Amino acid sequence: MAYSIGILGATGAVGQEIIRLLHERGFPMRSLRLLASARSAGKEIRYGNHSWIVEEATDEAFADLDCAIFSAGASQSLRFAPSAVASGCVVIDNSSAYRSDENVPLVVPEINPQAALLHEGILANPNCSTAIALMALYPLHKVFGLRHVIAATYQAVSGSGAEAMHELDQQVRAWARGEEGEIKVYPHRIAFNLIPHVDAFLDNGYTKEEMKMQNEGRKILGLRELKVSCSCVRVPVFRAHSIALNAAFERPVEVAAAREAIAAFPGCELVDDPANVRYPMPKDYSEVVACGVGRIRIDTALDNGLALWVVGDQLWKGAALNAIQIAELLHQHKRLTL
Amino acid sequence: MAYSIGILGATGAVGQEIIRLLHERGFPMRSLRLLASARSAGKEIRYGNHSWIVEEATDEAFADLDCAIFSAGASQSLRFAPSAVASGCVVIDNSSAYRSDENVPLVVPEINPQAALLHEGILANPNCSTAIALMALYPLHKVFGLRHVIAATYQAVSGSGAEAMHELDQQVRAWARGEEGEIKVYPHRIAFNLIPHVDAFLDNGYTKEEMKMQNEGRKILGLRELKVSCSCVRVPVFRAHSIALNAAFERPVEVAAAREAIAAFPGCELVDDPANVRYPMPKDYSEVVACGVGRIRIDTALDNGLALWVVGDQLWKGAALNAIQIAELLHQHKRLTL
Repeated sequence: MAYSIGILGATGAVGQEIIRLLHERGFPMRSLRLLASARSAGKEIRYGNHSWIVEEATDEAFADLDCAIFSAGASQSLRFAPSAVASGCVVIDNSSAYRSDENVPLVVPEINPQAALLHEGILANPNCSTAIALMALYPLHKVFGLRHVIAATYQAVSGSGAEAMHELDQQVRAWARGEEGEIKVYPHRIAFNLIPHVDAFLDNGYTKEEMKMQNEGRKILGLRELKVSCSCVRVPVFRAHSIALNAAFERPVEVAAAREAIAAFPGCELVDDPANVRYPMPKDYSEVVACGVGRIRIDTALDNGLALWVVGDQLWKGAALNAIQIAELLHQHKRLTL
Repeated sequence: MAYSIGILGATGAVGQEIIRLLHERGFPMRSLRLLASARSAGKEIRYGNHSWIVEEATDEAFADLDCAIFSAGASQSLRFAPSAVASGCVVIDNSSAYRSDENVPLVVPEINPQAALLHEGILANPNCSTAIALMALYPLHKVFGLRHVIAATYQAVSGSGAEAMHELDQQVRAWARGEEGEIKVYPHRIAFNLIPHVDAFLDNGYTKEEMKMQNEGRKILGLRELKVSCSCVRVPVFRAHSIALNAAFERPVEVAAAREAIAAFPGCELVDDPANVRYPMPKDYSEVVACGVGRIRIDTALDNGLALWVVGDQLWKGAALNAIQIAELLHQHKRLTL
């Protein structure tokens, strides 16, 4: 069994990683078609010995595809997912467009694989910080029962796409030459700075990104009452997100049991050896499949609480990798079909 | 009234800012003597039209001084504070040496000025993250009654001294040339990275720095039962510390009242206008007297909780400025004397 796969948004930072990971992971492909906006159509994309000409996304473009991974933003997903599904193509959507849709599974394969199997054509890939935070929280939830979470993120610029990675790069190079860099993607300089603002602000003072950790966390974990308070901050790091977590649980917690749960959980690496200055850091979790979890300790403020620190590649587990893992899961269960 | 002032650790990053701020703020000085280790003795230090030759710190060096600000680390403070006080010199100590000593006031002048007036010769300046966090928490505590705090810090390299500022600078310049930078001050690269490790690790899994916010917060606020869980993270920013705070209070909270309290508090600036992308950032709070507070919102996870974000200059409010403000306070109350 091999599939005709499409990528919508193939020229973006996540799209590029999807191409790479489909090949590196040996996903069973019969063909790969790269789709994007009219602006990018005609561009040549290379990976290894392969090369593709990017095609313009149209309603008809999905007719021959078994599955398309969408990574072109919510408006493009809303525009093309219905016609793709109508023509028999399973859509794995990396945007926020369908995440809260009751008929669309929102999936982290290590956490709620069963949800994926119930899909009706569209599956949603979670927000990047949410996916990475849940990779640490879910194994602890299974042991202790999660009640509420305080999260502070340290988000890499890759989360804003290839242009933002270029912006940090050029601002730092300009600084090294004694010049002011350009400010285009972010409202403020990001080099040697922090921007406590990721995604649009909502009426409650949180940003959309901050509320995703509660909203998507509830759906993925199946915990309708889960309370999460998240502070999202952009930091001058290229591509791995880090999150400081303080989590309160139903039952008494123990550090040894927490460490065991993390170490045993597929997709997590326990990196928690302070005496040898070992803890997860973004420099070690870029282009890495697993999320690193460390700094696990009994929380000094929350009852039945644990404090911890998780790091994961925003472009991989936060986006491209998780989407491909969903496709792999559907393939294993013969559900990568409509 | 004008004083003979000494600075122990005059050649360090904080020492340099003490010299600058004593002059910029017009502190009533009759003379200024710069002291340091034998290694730095003989060095010439300039500020404006002034110049000093650094003298070696000895037990006798404090005899003619009314007040000395110590910023040379805990061991130097323990070494010289007793002889300084014995010779009639008031010591304002920026190290952690005396902070938990019951007979030593630990002072943020805007918060607990009355404690300073009870000094017996030594006064302690708080930890940098603690001072900056408390500048935001105290005005809220007065209105709502603080119960517990979750804090995640984003700490600038200035907190590790001038060498660390140089390390970030040289690592980034090396990167711009396509080279590996040197790693000396920190156990890992800090450029484009995050290090979830500030100060030494303790048996409970927290670092000393992380526990300071609870221990020093209790003493400064006079709240013996205050619980604080802090995660301290070093970020590639030069000199302003930022802290994401989630605080639970005794009484129901309101954003409008919280904003009013912050805006009315001396030493705080309310910068909380998300619609116009205004919130405090390290680039705007370097070499600035006030701490900036923003992103104030009703906490979605904690009962009677507020989430907020505070930024302050580590070298100023976190160290040199607060120490000088203590001296100014003692001068106003004619207590800068033994």
